Amino acid sequence: MIKVGIVGGTGYTGVELLRILATHPEVQLTAITSRKEDGVPVAQMYPSLRGRVDLAFSSPDKADLHACDVVFFATPHGVAMAQAPELLKNGVKVIDLAADFRLQDVAQFEQWYGMAHSCTELLSEAAYGLPELNREQIAKARLIGNPGCYPTTMQLGFAPLLKAGLIDAGNLIADCKSGVSGAGRKAEIGILFSETSDSFKAYGVSGHRHTPETIEQLQRLTDEKVGLLFTPHLVPMVRGMHSTLYAQLKDNALAMSNEALQAVFEEAYRNEAFVDVMPFGSHPETRSTRASNLLRLAVHRPGNGKMVVVLVVQDNLVKGASGQAVQCMNLMFGLAENTGLHHVPVMP
Amino acid sequence: MIKVGIVGGTGYTGVELLRILATHPEVQLTAITSRKEDGVPVAQMYPSLRGRVDLAFSSPDKADLHACDVVFFATPHGVAMAQAPELLKNGVKVIDLAADFRLQDVAQFEQWYGMAHSCTELLSEAAYGLPELNREQIAKARLIGNPGCYPTTMQLGFAPLLKAGLIDAGNLIADCKSGVSGAGRKAEIGILFSETSDSFKAYGVSGHRHTPETIEQLQRLTDEKVGLLFTPHLVPMVRGMHSTLYAQLKDNALAMSNEALQAVFEEAYRNEAFVDVMPFGSHPETRSTRASNLLRLAVHRPGNGKMVVVLVVQDNLVKGASGQAVQCMNLMFGLAENTGLHHVPVMP
Amino acid sequence: MIKVGIVGGTGYTGVELLRILATHPEVQLTAITSRKEDGVPVAQMYPSLRGRVDLAFSSPDKADLHACDVVFFATPHGVAMAQAPELLKNGVKVIDLAADFRLQDVAQFEQWYGMAHSCTELLSEAAYGLPELNREQIAKARLIGNPGCYPTTMQLGFAPLLKAGLIDAGNLIADCKSGVSGAGRKAEIGILFSETSDSFKAYGVSGHRHTPETIEQLQRLTDEKVGLLFTPHLVPMVRGMHSTLYAQLKDNALAMSNEALQAVFEEAYRNEAFVDVMPFGSHPETRSTRASNLLRLAVHRPGNGKMVVVLVVQDNLVKGASGQAVQCMNLMFGLAENTGLHHVPVMP
Amino acid sequence: MIKVGIVGGTGYTGVELLRILATHPEVQLTAITSRKEDGVPVAQMYPSLRGRVDLAFSSPDKADLHACDVVFFATPHGVAMAQAPELLKNGVKVIDLAADFRLQDVAQFEQWYGMAHSCTELLSEAAYGLPELNREQIAKARLIGNPGCYPTTMQLGFAPLLKAGLIDAGNLIADCKSGVSGAGRKAEIGILFSETSDSFKAYGVSGHRHTPETIEQLQRLTDEKVGLLFTPHLVPMVRGMHSTLYAQLKDNALAMSNEALQAVFEEAYRNEAFVDVMPFGSHPETRSTRASNLLRLAVHRPGNGKMVVVLVVQDNLVKGASGQAVQCMNLMFGLAENTGLHHVPVMP
Repeated sequence: MIKVGIVGGTGYTGVELLRILATHPEVQLTAITSRKEDGVPVAQMYPSLRGRVDLAFSSPDKADLHACDVVFFATPHGVAMAQAPELLKNGVKVIDLAADFRLQDVAQFEQWYGMAHSCTELLSEAAYGLPELNREQIAKARLIGNPGCYPTTMQLGFAPLLKAGLIDAGNLIADCKSGVSGAGRKAEIGILFSETSDSFKAYGVSGHRHTPETIEQLQRLTDEKVGLLFTPHLVPMVRGMHSTLYAQLKDNALAMSNEALQAVFEEAYRNEAFVDVMPFGSHPETRSTRASNLLRLAVHRPGNGKMVVVLVVQDNLVKGASGQAVQCMNLMFGLAENTGLHHVPVMP
Repeated sequence: MIKVGIVGGTGYTGVELLRILATHPEVQLTAITSRKEDGVPVAQMYPSLRGRVDLAFSSPDKADLHACDVVFFATPHGVAMAQAPELLKNGVKVIDLAADFRLQDVAQFEQWYGMAHSCTELLSEAAYGLPELNREQIAKARLIGNPGCYPTTMQLGFAPLLKAGLIDAGNLIADCKSGVSGAGRKAEIGILFSETSDSFKAYGVSGHRHTPETIEQLQRLTDEKVGLLFTPHLVPMVRGMHSTLYAQLKDNALAMSNEALQAVFEEAYRNEAFVDVMPFGSHPETRSTRASNLLRLAVHRPGNGKMVVVLVVQDNLVKGASGQAVQCMNLMFGLAENTGLHHVPVMP
Repeated sequence: MIKVGIVGGTGYTGVELLRILATHPEVQLTAITSRKEDGVPVAQMYPSLRGRVDLAFSSPDKADLHACDVVFFATPHGVAMAQAPELLKNGVKVIDLAADFRLQDVAQFEQWYGMAHSCTELLSEAAYGLPELNREQIAKARLIGNPGCYPTTMQLGFAPLLKAGLIDAGNLIADCKSGVSGAGRKAEIGILFSETSDSFKAYGVSGHRHTPETIEQLQRLTDEKVGLLFTPHLVPMVRGMHSTLYAQLKDNALAMSNEALQAVFEEAYRNEAFVDVMPFGSHPETRSTRASNLLRLAVHRPGNGKMVVVLVVQDNLVKGASGQAVQCMNLMFGLAENTGLHHVPVMP
Repeated sequence: MIKVGIVGGTGYTGVELLRILATHPEVQLTAITSRKEDGVPVAQMYPSLRGRVDLAFSSPDKADLHACDVVFFATPHGVAMAQAPELLKNGVKVIDLAADFRLQDVAQFEQWYGMAHSCTELLSEAAYGLPELNREQIAKARLIGNPGCYPTTMQLGFAPLLKAGLIDAGNLIADCKSGVSGAGRKAEIGILFSETSDSFKAYGVSGHRHTPETIEQLQRLTDEKVGLLFTPHLVPMVRGMHSTLYAQLKDNALAMSNEALQAVFEEAYRNEAFVDVMPFGSHPETRSTRASNLLRLAVHRPGNGKMVVVLVVQDNLVKGASGQAVQCMNLMFGLAENTGLHHVPVMP
């Protein structure tokens, strides 16, 4: 059994980790920390876990995280980089669900997250935790920077086209929509029910921190200079993410048939347990992935023109966060990648 | 492995059965019928099941239901009673999720469901499928009438008080609220998104068919004459049911402490896997049971007065329908009652 | 033109006052205060008011509220009682949307609101602002305690039955459901979208401050001792309130016909612009009152038994708060009661 | 007073017309037809109109539409073109909210709407009912093709840039999101609450009938060949539409300042009552226009690059349908354009 610790388990990625790990056959939940909730049983804060998780939150100083095999950080940005060195030194693997180890470019990190990076010496060994594009590095890593939710959809949607050299890498557009749980469990006016329900809006249109992360990773797939315009929106739903990706076919790809285009995606994800390439021209719904680690996508080519449109959906809290982190853990510990991740999506 | 057939799997209780059975370790999905969708892969209608359910719908005449060990009817009222005799004769067990075998009182059935009962000879052997109150009969039965969603909450909420003789049986009030999925997957104006979203209403206040079902069952628990006023409401949410139950303490129970009142419930459900008695005075949320077979309840006694208020929540599609049906199946086949029903509630 | 000031206009009752007053033909918006938002244009915080409200928030010390004819307090409990004496002294009328002047019983106020009442000398002249039951007093008053949202529905639903002496006053039950905007615009976890959406729960079941307010007012209508069990619930919708009221007919009323019962309500509200008595046995939807000052109700008598069920709906922010306050203002200034309150409900 | 008839008033654009016209000071509602609901009072089908609209539906043959000054068609496509000639001959003006008179290109109409156009002789005199771009023609017209909801946002968002020759007309992208009421009031599985709530999806990505309409109109604003990629999505909200528009600046416009870009929009809509140009870089919310005839937009230029992003919001049932139709009527009858359209948006 893998002994697992969670730092900062009071947010949505924390409780989602608990939901998944509570039935993971190879995991023993060992410690969960929260300074503020020290002593409070997890199931008191999250009644959904009554009878399934017996742990109580403990303050970080009391929790013996060094006894764990792996520690997940479901914390605000900046926490993991402060604690990772000590844990790694003690032989504990670290998976950070925040942004501390996502970006190799420290300047970008510091610009977008508004803090100095205190642990740059570990960046080079940190693996970007997107298994479908970085499986080998993850399997060998001690330290994972788990991808952002939006970047997961953008990368898995654009990657097959970029790798195959079919599209103009410099003019990518991603019009993305997220459920409100993506904003976290924070006492903020802007994400109140009465502020977000029955309404829709964009945010961060002039610039969002998931852009540099996505560009850095997409750049690994192509020699051309990647240019990406990313527009996030807030959808009045709890879970779910839908990315509508626009790319322009290169001249030499314009003659491709739709079947050939589809085949590019099917080949790319033929052996992937968690990426479902739907039939050409499908319209995936976010709910078709709800509460599961699946990401589904479908390819369109309107009017058989020069633009390819890729529709990508996932549950932002699972494949977009906690499920992906567990997928990484499975790889790091030599388990089958889908161990404990067999949830069938909840629909309706 | 239990060979399972499903008749009428295109509705919400049908797809929920599929979600649960797809990961049930002792079940082999064998046939699923739909006259209208003959030949259509289940996963085409329900993309959430892509990669998890390979069956296609088949028309009833083609499906070899006799080869099944058990057949679930997720059909409109009246279908199961037409087909159950032939199946039972062939040694196939039957679990009906509709109302055909819920009521022992044929006159009540015919009045409330507006059709003649064509199979009254089987009623006496039909077991009412509420395991917590009828476990032994279910375990021995060939034929199950699976309870209605509202009746499940009303019975499990009132039963401990009635059995203990603490309340006035003749003046029960149940103010119940259901998510819209309880109305089924039917092309009707009244359950459109734009008709039900951001609004709330009661329905069937002057009379609802779940009243006679509940009274018939509650009457088994007491010698006093049961009187029940049941008021259903429609909540703008997909899944979830909340019943607010009001009962008046008998004079000789007025001196009870809250601890004693709470103990009545804790005793009643001490060994139940799926009934969670929360601390006295709690306010359970429907989402704390979402997509799981759990029912949670909490007891209140406002102002230490004569009224007891019991708050009961469940997922109407799981404990209120398909999960309960699988719980019955487990009992009928000698499996542990919670086999395949370990889902942790999805929250948020 | 009536010069109007608003103290504390940043919450939902504040912005709703602004929406209504912006098109009120006899009102001139003169000042709106907020310590925190001093200098911020109202339309910047509430883009819905761009082009319709030109005022900026000003800190209380800068705003010349004494120049107003009337000041609305859309503030937390305790603010109005501190400022009302000075305003009244200067000839400014005061309408408090919080609880400071709702309860005549100071002990009850102090118990339920957890603060000392600093202005008890004004209580006796404060009029309870429910025009349908207290019109004459309101018209003459300088100071109004605007009713709570729940109490408005409970009083208007029970009043005709109580006045006519038809029901047992000691055993009233009100099972009430409110949209989330009723909880206000506060940065609290419990009312986040991801906490309240797609879920339903009760709260305050063991005791809620709207109980004493309602009892105090209902007691004015009958010589019998009023007993009320009030259970509030939270509905995943923005606006709207639905109260399901249960009362037991007295023995001498059991022979009443449904027509006679209905007539009691129709008589009671025959001349009311804002109370709509729907046909007997109707099921009003909250959305049928959305964004209007209407309250609709319908009477049921299930099984022609001893229980009467009254279904009452309103928009909690309009008839349940700001619309009712404007209705009071109209009365206080001798205007037609529905001046500026002609909004047709927004449906869907 | 203008005598108004409505053909087919049972859908959402019909009831929205009624909501608006019920308080329009220059309108007398004269007739409303529905074959199916003949004799049913409008307020029985739409309780929100109780006390405000006294008409009953009448079958088309009974309604004396010839006595009207203007008739609105809130009908499925194909109805207006069958009845318009006779009405016009009798001096009755016609405003069609469906597509019959939107497209001048008959071949496009027949391809996208799957029916022959039976009234092509009137097309040349039909005015496209978008006042901000076609005011003069509307004012003189007897016959209006009211724009589609999506096309309204796309045109008003792209128009200032196209007219000023600042963008590449051949590569426009419109990623648009609509509330579910846009799909109408039809008994269809796909728009049930339980199918659309808490989920998000695209539809019609490979081709949608609002593309040719928008291109035909945008083409009137520029000599360059317009190319448009339009992707509609369904948002789990009742009302509201958000269009995210992407356009590429021409080389000679790359040096423009953001202030200059903003000024292009402010100039274009300086005198418009219903178009609100928000400050540069704003993020309009759909709810900021709810139940009003306003359209709000904001301009972004991410990274000061070559792409301009315009965010446009409106209420799809008002500015996107019935409100715009009334705006046209006002123009046609010489009234102030905003007569009866003063609704302040409902927020929250």
